[in-house]
Amino acid sequence: MAENDRSFCGNLSLSDVGSEVCLSGWVDALRDHGEVLFIHLRDRTGFIQAVFSPEHTPRRVYELASSLRSEFCVSLQGRVQRRTEETENPHIETGKIEVMVRELSILAASVVLPFPISEKAMTAGGGSGRADAVSEDLRLQYRYLDLRRPSMQDHLAKRYRIIKRARDFLDTRGFLEIETPILTKSTPEGARDYLVPSRVHPKEFYALPQSPQLFKQLLMMAGFERYFQVVRCFRDEDLRPNRQPEFTQLDMEASFIDEEFIFELTEELVARMFEVGGIELPRPFPRMPYGEAMETYGSDRPDTRFDLKFIEATDIFENTRYGIFKQILQRGGRIKGINVSGQSEKLSKNVLQNEYAKEIVPSFGAKGMTWMRVSAGGLDSNIVQFFSEEEKGAVLRRFHARDGDVILMIADASHDLVLSALGQLRLHLADRLGLIPPGVFHPLWVTDFPLFEATEDGVTSSHHPFTAPDRESFDPLDLQGLLDLRSRAYDLVVNGEELGGGSMRINKKDIQLRIFRALGLSEQEIEDKFGFFVRALDYGAPPHGGIALGLDRVVSMILRTPSIREVTAFPKNRSAYCPLTRAPSQVAQEQLRELGLTDMGEARQVRLLQERKELIDSLSWVSRIGFDEAERAAITTALADAVRMVETLEGIDCDFEPLFSPVSAVYRMGEKMGARECSLAATGEILKNAPSVKGNYYKVASILE
Amino acid sequence: MAENDRSFCGNLSLSDVGSEVCLSGWVDALRDHGEVLFIHLRDRTGFIQAVFSPEHTPRRVYELASSLRSEFCVSLQGRVQRRTEETENPHIETGKIEVMVRELSILAASVVLPFPISEKAMTAGGGSGRADAVSEDLRLQYRYLDLRRPSMQDHLAKRYRIIKRARDFLDTRGFLEIETPILTKSTPEGARDYLVPSRVHPKEFYALPQSPQLFKQLLMMAGFERYFQVVRCFRDEDLRPNRQPEFTQLDMEASFIDEEFIFELTEELVARMFEVGGIELPRPFPRMPYGEAMETYGSDRPDTRFDLKFIEATDIFENTRYGIFKQILQRGGRIKGINVSGQSEKLSKNVLQNEYAKEIVPSFGAKGMTWMRVSAGGLDSNIVQFFSEEEKGAVLRRFHARDGDVILMIADASHDLVLSALGQLRLHLADRLGLIPPGVFHPLWVTDFPLFEATEDGVTSSHHPFTAPDRESFDPLDLQGLLDLRSRAYDLVVNGEELGGGSMRINKKDIQLRIFRALGLSEQEIEDKFGFFVRALDYGAPPHGGIALGLDRVVSMILRTPSIREVTAFPKNRSAYCPLTRAPSQVAQEQLRELGLTDMGEARQVRLLQERKELIDSLSWVSRIGFDEAERAAITTALADAVRMVETLEGIDCDFEPLFSPVSAVYRMGEKMGARECSLAATGEILKNAPSVKGNYYKVASILE
Repeated sequence: MAENDRSFCGNLSLSDVGSEVCLSGWVDALRDHGEVLFIHLRDRTGFIQAVFSPEHTPRRVYELASSLRSEFCVSLQGRVQRRTEETENPHIETGKIEVMVRELSILAASVVLPFPISEKAMTAGGGSGRADAVSEDLRLQYRYLDLRRPSMQDHLAKRYRIIKRARDFLDTRGFLEIETPILTKSTPEGARDYLVPSRVHPKEFYALPQSPQLFKQLLMMAGFERYFQVVRCFRDEDLRPNRQPEFTQLDMEASFIDEEFIFELTEELVARMFEVGGIELPRPFPRMPYGEAMETYGSDRPDTRFDLKFIEATDIFENTRYGIFKQILQRGGRIKGINVSGQSEKLSKNVLQNEYAKEIVPSFGAKGMTWMRVSAGGLDSNIVQFFSEEEKGAVLRRFHARDGDVILMIADASHDLVLSALGQLRLHLADRLGLIPPGVFHPLWVTDFPLFEATEDGVTSSHHPFTAPDRESFDPLDLQGLLDLRSRAYDLVVNGEELGGGSMRINKKDIQLRIFRALGLSEQEIEDKFGFFVRALDYGAPPHGGIALGLDRVVSMILRTPSIREVTAFPKNRSAYCPLTRAPSQVAQEQLRELGLTDMGEARQVRLLQERKELIDSLSWVSRIGFDEAERAAITTALADAVRMVETLEGIDCDFEPLFSPVSAVYRMGEKMGARECSLAATGEILKNAPSVKGNYYKVASILE
Repeated sequence: MAENDRSFCGNLSLSDVGSEVCLSGWVDALRDHGEVLFIHLRDRTGFIQAVFSPEHTPRRVYELASSLRSEFCVSLQGRVQRRTEETENPHIETGKIEVMVRELSILAASVVLPFPISEKAMTAGGGSGRADAVSEDLRLQYRYLDLRRPSMQDHLAKRYRIIKRARDFLDTRGFLEIETPILTKSTPEGARDYLVPSRVHPKEFYALPQSPQLFKQLLMMAGFERYFQVVRCFRDEDLRPNRQPEFTQLDMEASFIDEEFIFELTEELVARMFEVGGIELPRPFPRMPYGEAMETYGSDRPDTRFDLKFIEATDIFENTRYGIFKQILQRGGRIKGINVSGQSEKLSKNVLQNEYAKEIVPSFGAKGMTWMRVSAGGLDSNIVQFFSEEEKGAVLRRFHARDGDVILMIADASHDLVLSALGQLRLHLADRLGLIPPGVFHPLWVTDFPLFEATEDGVTSSHHPFTAPDRESFDPLDLQGLLDLRSRAYDLVVNGEELGGGSMRINKKDIQLRIFRALGLSEQEIEDKFGFFVRALDYGAPPHGGIALGLDRVVSMILRTPSIREVTAFPKNRSAYCPLTRAPSQVAQEQLRELGLTDMGEARQVRLLQERKELIDSLSWVSRIGFDEAERAAITTALADAVRMVETLEGIDCDFEPLFSPVSAVYRMGEKMGARECSLAATGEILKNAPSVKGNYYKVASILE
C-alpha cells in the first residue's frame, strides 16, 4: 500500500463519510456481536471503529477478521459511514463515524499480552485499561507494548514538542547548539562518574559527563557567545525514586551578559515550554534570596503555592519561665512557628498532641512541637499555662492569630534543625490539609546562595568551583570570610521542585586559583584536575554565565506525570537496570581481555572469598569475641546471607531506599545453639520508635525514603 | 554594560555612521602607527576596526589601549565613522567604516598565543593566519583558541544550521525525535563496544550504543510510526583518518512504508541540508544495484563525478595466444579495462609501463596491468604484437577507442581482485589526471546488496541481522541459497563517500529466527543476545524500515573540510585521545575499587611482567632457538623497546596508520655480538618493492594508509 493512499485513524471526521480509506494500525479492542464484528483500530493519531458484517464484508475478509485478536497489526480498506446516534462513542474523537471494511490484511499477529494496553472503552459505558494497575518492572520489560498506550504516546510526543519549542526559541535568540564529547574527562559535579575503559590506552579511562560544564565554558572562551545543547548527562548515584543514571539537560551559556540576561531568557523559554502543556506561568518570576527561603520556608526550593510561612518567635520568649523554651534559649537556640490559619477544626488536640507532637515532628528530627489553638481571642493548649500574659499577647499579635487558627512552634538549640523540621512540617500540613491549590504553578528564582559550605576540615563548593563569588576580594585561608561569601548562582524552582540552576562563572585566573586553594587543593592537584582549564583562563576569557534545566523533570511537571520514567522512552528501573534489554549484563571474557579487565574473572572470586574471611576476623577482633570453628562456619554463612539479603533488597523495585539494618525476629548465633525468639520483636518493642502504631501495623517515618 | 546596549561588530554598516556604539569582543589584530593605534575587534558576527588617537580618545583610554595585545578580551564605546577611501579594507565586511574609541575596558588579558588566530589582514595587502600551518595536536590542545578562528566559528555555526534544517524538515513530515539510552546493551554492528562497568551490579557492564538500531525498531513496534534522533554513537575501532570514537548520526525509522518512502524522504532531507552550503543536489538521486557498482566501478560506493567505467574484455580474449591472458583465463579469471579517453599525452609509454604497470597497480594488489595507447586508428603497446587482428579490432570497438585514448586492462584469476585493483586504479587516474570536476556533487543510491557474505565457516550479515531479505523463503542451512539472497538495504553515496545507509527490517519472528540460524547462532545464543528483541516480534510488529546518516561526514562534505575534525567542536586525535582535557586518563584507585576494578593496579603490573617473560619463552619455542641468560636479557630489552616504539608510533599524529613491522637498519642479536648493518637496508633492497624510487627517497604505496 503506497504511503500517499494511507489515511490516519484519528484524522477521519464526518467530512470523510462516504469516502474509501486505507488504514494501518493495531487492533486496540474488539467486540463480537454474533453476526457483526467491531474493532477499534489504533494508530498514532487515534482510533476508529471498523466494522465487519456478513452483509457488507466479503466472506473471505469476514472469516479472516474473525481470527483477529488484540494488538494484531493490520491494514484495511473500507468506506467511512456515519454511526447511528445510539451507537456513537463519546470516548473516542471519531466516535460519530466508523469504517465498513471491504479488505483486510494481517501484517503481523500477536500472542496474548502480558497486560492490557487498550485505554479506550468501545462503548459509551465501558471501562478502560490503566497503566498503574501493572507493576512497573513488567511495564519496562515490555516497554514496546507499554509505549503503545495512547497516554505514553502522548507523553513522548509532547516531550518532543516541548523540546522543539525550546530549540526554536533559543534559535531566535541567536543561540547555537554545539555538541560536546560524551567520552571525556571527569568533572567535579559532586556525584560519581561513570567510567569507560580505554582499549587503546590501557589502564586509562574516559568519564561520561555529569554535565558539559567545562566544555560550555571553553566554548565561551572560544568566542561562541551563545551556546545551548540538549545533552545527555550521567551520574552514578545511589538511585532515588525520581532519578535516572542518565538524564537529559537543556544546557545554556552566554558571554558578555549578567544574571538579568539569564533570568529574562530563561523565563521566556520556560514559559514557552509550559505553554505546550496549556500552562501559563506568571511573569516575571519572583526572586528570593537563599537566606529568606531558609528562614521562611526551611528549604532552598520552597513550594510557594501555599503560605504557611515561618514566623520568628525567639525574641518573644527571651525571658520566659517555660522550662523547655528557657533551656533551649540558654543554649543559643531558636523558636519559630507557623500559623495554620483556620484549620483548628481539622487539627484536634488529640491529633496535635498524639500525632504531630509525639510522632510526626520527631520523625523530622525535632525533639517535639509546641501547639496552640486559637479560640475566644486566646490560646488553648497544654502548655500555655506556663506562658506569661505578655508572651501570650505577643504570640497572638506576631502570628496575626484569629479564632480557628492553629499555631505550631518548633524550638531547638540548633537553628538548622528548627528550619529543617519546620520545613518538613510545613509540607506535611499542606499535603494533609489539602492546602495546595491544584493546577497552579509557582515559579521562583532562589538567589544569593552561600559560595561555600563548611566541612569537617575546611569548605566545599555549594554548587561547583567555577561559580563566581559576589566579590573578588577574599582570602582563601580565612575560613569565616569564605563562609560569608555569596555566590552569583541561581536556582529555578517551580512548586517546590528544582528544575534548573546556574551561575555567573569565574573568568579570571587569579580568582579561580584562589577558589581552588580555598577548597584545599594543592598546586599539583589543581594542575592534575584542572590544569587545562586554568590555562584557558590565560587567553582573554570573557565574562560569562549560564544555566541548565533538567528536561526530564520539566517535561514531567508540564505533563503532570508521577515520575520522570513516564516521560522517558526507555528508562532504567530503580536499581539502574533495564528490564527490557537486561542491561547491564555480563560480557564475553574476550571483550574484558581486550580492555585489560580480565582480572575481574576468576582471580576476583578468590579475592572476594579472602575478603569475606578477613571480615570475620575483623568482626571477631572488634567485638572482642572469639569464635570456635563451628561458630565461625555459622557466622560465615550468616554474613553471606546478610550480603545476599542486601543484594536482594537492592534488586527490589519499590518506593523506598533499601533498609540496610533490619533486625531479625528469630536468630541463632551458632549451629549448636538453636533458634531464639527476639523478645523485643515479640513484644513489639523493636519498633517502639515508629511514629505511629495501629494494631499490628507500624507506620514507618517517611524520612526513610 | 546591559545586553540591550550592545552592538555586534559584523552587523555595523554605513547606516550606523555617526552613531555611538558599545562593542565587546577580542583584539584580533593590532597595528601601531606611532600616533594612532588601530585594532580589529572580533566578535562572533565579524570584525570592526577600532581607532585610538590622541586627538579623539581620552588620554586615560589611549594609555590603556597601548597595553592591548592579541586576544585581549575587551569592551569599548565609540562613534562609528566612515573610513577614507584609501584606508578601506576589502578583507572585512565592515571595511568601509571604523569606530573612534572613547571608552575602553579590558575584561581579561591574554598571554602570548601558542599559534596565531587572526585570519584577516588589517590592510588591503596584508597576509593572514592559516590553521593548516599549525600541528593538529597543538590546535586540539588549545582548541578554545583554535575555535576562535572565524573559519571554525563558521563551521560550527553552519553545522548547527544544517542539523536544524534537518530537524525542521522532519518535523513537517510528522517525525518525532525520541531519545534512546546511552547506557545500554551491546548491539551487533560489527565494531567493538565501549563498555561501562556498573557499580550497582558488580562484574556487569553497560555498552555504549554503536547505533540505536534495536531501540528504533522497538519504537516502531511501540507504534510511534515515525521516529528520528540526532544521536551520539560509539565505536571502539582502530582509528582511521576520518573516524572518531564517538560520532553523531541522524537516525530515522518509519512504519507501514517501503523503500520508496525512504528514498523520497531522504532525498528531500539531504537536498535541504546541502542547500545550507549553497549546494543544489540533482533530483531524483540515481540508483544503482550493488552488482553494477562493483562490475562498473569496482566499489560499493562509486564516485560517479567522472566516467572511467569498467569495460568487460574477458570474452574478447577467449581464444587468445597471449600467454598471460591465456593462463589467467584457463584458471577461470577475468579481464576488465578502462578507456582513459583522450589522455595519451599525459600518459606516456614510460609512465604507463614503469609507473602504472610496475609500481602503482601492483600496490593495489594486482600482478600487473596491460596498457594500449590508441593512435592512427590502432593500438600501440609493448604487448599488442601478441594480439590477433580480431582481438585488436574487438578491443577498439568494445572500448569505443579513438586516437589519443589510453586503454588499461587488468587481468587476474580472481574476479574480486580485478574489480578492486581496477577500482583503485580508476580513482588514482581521476585524481592524477584532474578528471574530477570541482564543486559538483553526485548523489547515488546503491541498492540490492547481498544479504550475506561468505566467511570461513558460514555466512555473516553484510549490514546487520535485522535487514529484511528480498524474499521470505530461504533455508538457513543452504549456504549457496543464503549467498544468493539480496537484502532490502540501501546506501546513500555522494562523490564516492558513504553518507548513510539503511534498510527495510524484518518484522516477522520466523524470518528473524531463520536469519539468526543462518548466522550460526544456537538457540541459547539467540536467547542471550536477542531474546528480548525476538520476543517483541511476538506482538504484532509493523512493517518498518529506516536510514541513518553520518552527520559529521555530511556536514564535512557540505562545508568541504578536509576532515570531520574541522566540523567537530572537541574531537579526539587519531589515537582516540583528547589533547585538551587529556582524556582518557588514569583515575583514583578509590574509583576503581568502587567499581570492582582494583585488580588492574599493582597485581596487573606483575601480570604484565609475567606476560613479557612468557612472550620470550614462546618466541624461543616457536623459533626453535635457545637463549642463554645474557641473550635472554638483551632480547627482553629489545622486546620492551619494540613495544615502546609501537607505543611511540601510536602516539604520533600523522596521516598514516602506524607501520607495525619496521625493519631496523642496524641490529644486534645479543650483548656480545655487536651491531650489524642490515645489508638489505644498506643497498636499498629493503624497500625494493616500493612502487616508486627517486634517488634516496622511496615512495610508499598509499595503500598503507
